[in-house]
Amino acid sequence: MKLAIFGGGQLGRMLALAALPLDVRCQFLDPVEAPCAAAAGRHIRGDYEDPAALEAFAQGADSATYEFENVPVAAVEHVARLIPAAPGAVSLACAQDRGHEKQLFEDLDIAVAPWAEVNDAGSLRQAAATVGLPAVLKTRRFGYDGKGQVVIRGADELDAAWDAVGAQPCVLEAFVPFQREVSMIGVRSREGEIRCYTLTENVHRDGILRRSTPVEGDALQPAAEAALSKVMRALDHVGVMAFEFFVAEGRLLANEIAPRVHNSGHWTIDGAVCSQFENHVRAVLDLPLGETALRQPCVMLNAIGSMPATAELAAIPGVRIHAYGKSARPGRKVGHVTVLGCSTSELRRRLAMLDALIDA
Amino acid sequence: MKLAIFGGGQLGRMLALAALPLDVRCQFLDPVEAPCAAAAGRHIRGDYEDPAALEAFAQGADSATYEFENVPVAAVEHVARLIPAAPGAVSLACAQDRGHEKQLFEDLDIAVAPWAEVNDAGSLRQAAATVGLPAVLKTRRFGYDGKGQVVIRGADELDAAWDAVGAQPCVLEAFVPFQREVSMIGVRSREGEIRCYTLTENVHRDGILRRSTPVEGDALQPAAEAALSKVMRALDHVGVMAFEFFVAEGRLLANEIAPRVHNSGHWTIDGAVCSQFENHVRAVLDLPLGETALRQPCVMLNAIGSMPATAELAAIPGVRIHAYGKSARPGRKVGHVTVLGCSTSELRRRLAMLDALIDA
Repeated sequence: MKLAIFGGGQLGRMLALAALPLDVRCQFLDPVEAPCAAAAGRHIRGDYEDPAALEAFAQGADSATYEFENVPVAAVEHVARLIPAAPGAVSLACAQDRGHEKQLFEDLDIAVAPWAEVNDAGSLRQAAATVGLPAVLKTRRFGYDGKGQVVIRGADELDAAWDAVGAQPCVLEAFVPFQREVSMIGVRSREGEIRCYTLTENVHRDGILRRSTPVEGDALQPAAEAALSKVMRALDHVGVMAFEFFVAEGRLLANEIAPRVHNSGHWTIDGAVCSQFENHVRAVLDLPLGETALRQPCVMLNAIGSMPATAELAAIPGVRIHAYGKSARPGRKVGHVTVLGCSTSELRRRLAMLDALIDA
Repeated sequence: MKLAIFGGGQLGRMLALAALPLDVRCQFLDPVEAPCAAAAGRHIRGDYEDPAALEAFAQGADSATYEFENVPVAAVEHVARLIPAAPGAVSLACAQDRGHEKQLFEDLDIAVAPWAEVNDAGSLRQAAATVGLPAVLKTRRFGYDGKGQVVIRGADELDAAWDAVGAQPCVLEAFVPFQREVSMIGVRSREGEIRCYTLTENVHRDGILRRSTPVEGDALQPAAEAALSKVMRALDHVGVMAFEFFVAEGRLLANEIAPRVHNSGHWTIDGAVCSQFENHVRAVLDLPLGETALRQPCVMLNAIGSMPATAELAAIPGVRIHAYGKSARPGRKVGHVTVLGCSTSELRRRLAMLDALIDA
């Protein structure tokens, strides 16, 4: 079988590595010259808005999917007229707009921090009065890895914040004094079956994910699964979805969803029987879903900017290396490692060795 | 880094899938038009005896290795003059000749079944008298998957057997009434470090491996590790080696070695932290070796001739699918599956479901 994937970044690469053993070959549409996924599949260079490129991309493929949520909705709709596409444009459109996303959470009775729509400097002032300060101003569209976000501490910062986000439609969110950030990764099949992974605790720095730890038996697992399941059903989502939450006063507050495989689920490659990548491929191609249970304690660390030397990483027992074949650049996600232990104490010892190599 | 691999079959494909996350890209020299490894790396089409092809193959690679042992020794020697190559031509030459191989086992005090060299019909008669009948006549070179072997039950079958193997140099081996067949897979680094996997019990049918089961705590583990280690040291072998044994009267009898990743080690992809494929890549590229411990009970089944439907396999919990992207053909290894269980009883239940799909 052949799977057509919008985007040829590391998520596409890891999808292809999971797909090949199922005898599924991937082809990627990406406008860049040499995307890192090309090492594991066929790269079709073209723009997401070019109908000829979209048709070449769909040619011969059994199904289409996307590895990032900023692909134009019209591009997915175009391809969906040619071959089956999953997740659908509905999931994509929702995830692309923080306003719609938050409204959906509220409609589904999923708790969110106080928020308000902001369309101009005047409505920002009004929103600040409703939501309270400090608060975070976020562009409704095209934000990722902390981009398109400004923290507003006092009323005197409102105008500067509006300028900083480029005077575009935004949401203002109350600043949540959270105890921790967690995410739930799950997958939904075409038949509506849902399987969820172990709740994952995440640490961000400068808006970029640094570290993810699946937490077996976390008290919030059922609530997180329920919230993710509600959203997936509401969107008739097929494939993997990630749901990020803040934990404040012991309760989940919805942050955002990603209608795709997600960085905080990378530990599933080594820590679960069937990874988020394989489960996404299975769901999109209408194959039965795979096992999501945690196999053993593990922690995933992102390599930001550059990858530590392979020889040094490989010398630490239980370390699984995932280099993306991308050149080093400050702030860029160039790889991740997952460290496995047979016990949490063994894991801690190995993690201490890793901490000397990765600043995560 | 780049790794040049002689041969582009499924072993090359699985080496490449293990290499990519280490940011190691593979290129394969193979005379066939579309070898299955080409889906995971660059295929250079050419003959192993063509110097220009060998030079194109070595071009830009950091190291070379092979995925099958019938590559001409001269080809490996040629490439080894251009770039580091491991395992060396010595391992290859030994594994290519059953006579040399058995002599090495005897020199290292590793028990073998009675055997004798056979160079013509006359020496076959003499060998039969020494070794006894029934016995197995095997060509010294180019035997695999039961090819080049004839069982001789009585003296009246000697001439027919000699004709059947093509009247070429052979060894005659006493027919061993074995209780089981086992193999030991290990890896040796350039520095001489050796790591071994869990002893694996194998079931063959018509000379083709059907099923492999790692046996935790088998009493023969230390002896099998010792024998493999002796051979690897004697050959100054770098990379993975497999050693197949018969178990007769509770003791190991050496059968043969393979100086490469091996079918009976395929369970290590899903059942060990660091697979035989990754450990081979690590050893060849002079990286530290990875963990070989068994993660959980598992069994590997070969798909011979054709691959069962992915949807049916994927429906069984704990089944890891490894299709090689090869077309169906009687007797051809087209894929394998590894089934994992949290306990041996769970494993047995899942295996019973698999038995309905795979005749292994």
